[in-house]
Amino acid sequence: MEPSHTLELALGHGDRRALARLLRVVEDRRHGWRDVLAQAWPAAGSAQLVGVTGAPGSGKSTLANAMVTAWRAVDRAVAVVAVDPSSPFTGGALLGDRIRMQDHVGDTGVFIRSMSSRGRLGGLADTTAGLVTLLDAASYDPVLIETVGVGQSEVDVIDQTDTVIVVVTPGWGDGVQADKAGILEIGDVFVINKADRPQVAETRNTLAAMLEMSTDAGWVPPIVETVATDHSGVEELLDVVDRHRRHSKGPNGRVRQSRRVRSYIEAAISDRMRDRLEQPDLGDLLEQVRTRRLDPWTAAERLVPGPDAGSGDESRRASHPPT
Amino acid sequence: MEPSHTLELALGHGDRRALARLLRVVEDRRHGWRDVLAQAWPAAGSAQLVGVTGAPGSGKSTLANAMVTAWRAVDRAVAVVAVDPSSPFTGGALLGDRIRMQDHVGDTGVFIRSMSSRGRLGGLADTTAGLVTLLDAASYDPVLIETVGVGQSEVDVIDQTDTVIVVVTPGWGDGVQADKAGILEIGDVFVINKADRPQVAETRNTLAAMLEMSTDAGWVPPIVETVATDHSGVEELLDVVDRHRRHSKGPNGRVRQSRRVRSYIEAAISDRMRDRLEQPDLGDLLEQVRTRRLDPWTAAERLVPGPDAGSGDESRRASHPPT
Repeated sequence: MEPSHTLELALGHGDRRALARLLRVVEDRRHGWRDVLAQAWPAAGSAQLVGVTGAPGSGKSTLANAMVTAWRAVDRAVAVVAVDPSSPFTGGALLGDRIRMQDHVGDTGVFIRSMSSRGRLGGLADTTAGLVTLLDAASYDPVLIETVGVGQSEVDVIDQTDTVIVVVTPGWGDGVQADKAGILEIGDVFVINKADRPQVAETRNTLAAMLEMSTDAGWVPPIVETVATDHSGVEELLDVVDRHRRHSKGPNGRVRQSRRVRSYIEAAISDRMRDRLEQPDLGDLLEQVRTRRLDPWTAAERLVPGPDAGSGDESRRASHPPT
Repeated sequence: MEPSHTLELALGHGDRRALARLLRVVEDRRHGWRDVLAQAWPAAGSAQLVGVTGAPGSGKSTLANAMVTAWRAVDRAVAVVAVDPSSPFTGGALLGDRIRMQDHVGDTGVFIRSMSSRGRLGGLADTTAGLVTLLDAASYDPVLIETVGVGQSEVDVIDQTDTVIVVVTPGWGDGVQADKAGILEIGDVFVINKADRPQVAETRNTLAAMLEMSTDAGWVPPIVETVATDHSGVEELLDVVDRHRRHSKGPNGRVRQSRRVRSYIEAAISDRMRDRLEQPDLGDLLEQVRTRRLDPWTAAERLVPGPDAGSGDESRRASHPPT
């Protein structure tokens, strides 16, 4: 099948099965995947990309589900990409998420994609970028990207969105938590979910005090309380998300777009390089490094020549021609 | 200062201050850092690289501390690299770890380095590889690498060690835990720490049942119970770690070495590419992508030309000469 033909069908005529097929082409790196993305890219760019992140147990899947319901009530076509990077080896996506999302089965205004990292170390960000580009080009708006936790790869993924919602629960902020600072830096909107439990006020105060030190002028991240299981607080959350979208139309948004573009290219390059290292002609280079006749950093230099950022290697590069 | 001179001093004569200086050169990418690593690489390769990972609260820092004490008792020179990737933006390493490790201040047979990711997204694995190479070359053996949690970047770091110790606590295995499968795949040795609490037997049974399905013939990951706070079980743990080292001398170890070498090169390449994208001459390319005149995947292709792994882009590459 000719990819561009399928693309037109899927994106222009709302053919869900054709879209699902294209997503698979991109996710599995099937023949022509890059052509599909090259064609989708100019058609994308209008959807609001909303990231939802939070620790396991924060109820963010339930919240994502409630947000989808609320967006559907005002007739917005929503796509969800549920990323599960926590199982890098087994390729399994979280069953729980998929079950919850079954609320929307049969609704043609909702498109849900569960994704695992499929053993592709580090390739998560690139694959997500591709899927989001396709869904955006297919006129889903917003595209919701749900990630588990706030580790490095989640940060990479979340970095590619317009609006980041960080979900915490009452009691968050107690004791020494390693991820506190990272969470604060990343969030545009904070949600205290399970807000029918004790300690909501304390958690709000802790969060607010920390956010006061936020350096981003022009946007102080709002704190919204929700009980996702009974959908309470969700409409207020969507209002805040809309408000952030309007805020992002300015110069701030442009900076963020540039950052996202750079992040997309970085992710694509990482994937290319990983493929490159699988090539049989590199076996000898790898063996030289393994036996300590060549160091990994010089090997990297040979594989990716180019201007060095002041690393003081000019002389060495000249005396070691690329293999 | 001439890097090679410093290197000789630091590695040959046990000069701790010179070694600390070299580690800083590598960590901060100061002038000559790659020369330092190129010289250290052939001298490295004899240390056992031991990774310790586990969720926050599992007591793995206390356990690492107890292991260092036990290794010191048999007069081994130990280096510790404490990685804190959970705060990618603030650059702060966990104060708690450093305080605990103060037990060993003044002991010249222990070298401790706390590391944050310093805002260098994704560069954690490469920096760790560099520091470990230096410590290995400086004759520290073992080199203990402690990471928080089991997210993607921790997996990248842990992938670079010889023996991975996964620390859990009694009660682990209850309920749906996203990281269960990932943890099982990654561990060579499992520790149930805080083994003076209830549910130790259940946790051991759960773990053992899951490990039975492990596919790696020749090594069934042992399960060791410890109470790190009073050092109990730690000697048994070190015996098991030694046993894994002996096991790893065979063909298994060679496969793992090759994987590590590949991982080192990948990390080094990622760093190079990130530097490359910072170069001013790429501003126009980024702007083209931002304004949707060029897609990120084609941009990546222009930046990293080379054989494609069956991505079906041959025709497009021919018609778009690199900029």
